[in-house]
Amino acid sequence: MKVLAFDPGYDRLGVAVIERQYTKDILLHSSCLETDKKSELPDRLLLVGNEVTKLIEEYTPDAIAIETIFFNKNTKTAIGVAQARGIIIFLAKNAGCKVYEYGPQEIKVAVTGYGKSDKAAVIDMVKRLIVGAPEEALDDEYDAIAVGITALAHNRK
Amino acid sequence: MKVLAFDPGYDRLGVAVIERQYTKDILLHSSCLETDKKSELPDRLLLVGNEVTKLIEEYTPDAIAIETIFFNKNTKTAIGVAQARGIIIFLAKNAGCKVYEYGPQEIKVAVTGYGKSDKAAVIDMVKRLIVGAPEEALDDEYDAIAVGITALAHNRK
Repeated sequence: MKVLAFDPGYDRLGVAVIERQYTKDILLHSSCLETDKKSELPDRLLLVGNEVTKLIEEYTPDAIAIETIFFNKNTKTAIGVAQARGIIIFLAKNAGCKVYEYGPQEIKVAVTGYGKSDKAAVIDMVKRLIVGAPEEALDDEYDAIAVGITALAHNRK
Repeated sequence: MKVLAFDPGYDRLGVAVIERQYTKDILLHSSCLETDKKSELPDRLLLVGNEVTKLIEEYTPDAIAIETIFFNKNTKTAIGVAQARGIIIFLAKNAGCKVYEYGPQEIKVAVTGYGKSDKAAVIDMVKRLIVGAPEEALDDEYDAIAVGITALAHNRK
């Protein structure tokens, strides 16, 4: 199983491609797309969609995995993130991929075994669990890898 | 100028295609896509994206126009609508269309001249302003036509 995982956003889009090979989860790719803060939101959403299209074409994943969003005080940001999320889900479904969605707590449990782990603990476990995890990266990139780990953990037979 | 206008949603997607021909605004198409409430949200978003793709291919609009969203109490619905909105904006930008966004008040002003008009007043004016407006339709369809009228009003030379 090959999963394309996202920490969704229009400002930063964390991306990871993880494949289960025998008993190991291998990181084939991870990155963080950053879009220009001075650009209009529709232009930034276009970049997000183009990146997702490219990734689906390049890695032909079986499924995508994406973090759920909840609404905090900054509704403007939340609307933007939800819009980016919609694009990712549409492009995935359009390419015939399954769509898995996980909440922050589910991800923490899958990666660290504890639903209230802090960011440092999640990153530490990501590095231990995944062959090829980057030594240094933006949080969004580690978050995407964590989402991918969660999807593989939930789909283990 | 030909504009493809939306009242965005994943449950109901109001759509209108309006073209300015000389001094008249002509309705080329309007409809309301309804998706199955029993379907999963990703599947409903796929239907929305497929409909938008089809409309852009069929009508080759210069621009799309879409109502802005704001957040009320039902954040779950709002997230879904924002996701549908993201898909529409991405597909439009990807096809080279301009994207115009209008708030509810701007739309009311453009259609009725008054920012606090009620729904009935908006529908009444839609029928008077547009050649080919339907006699009866769902509110979402009239709302989409009103969004299209707003875009043409804002882009009159």
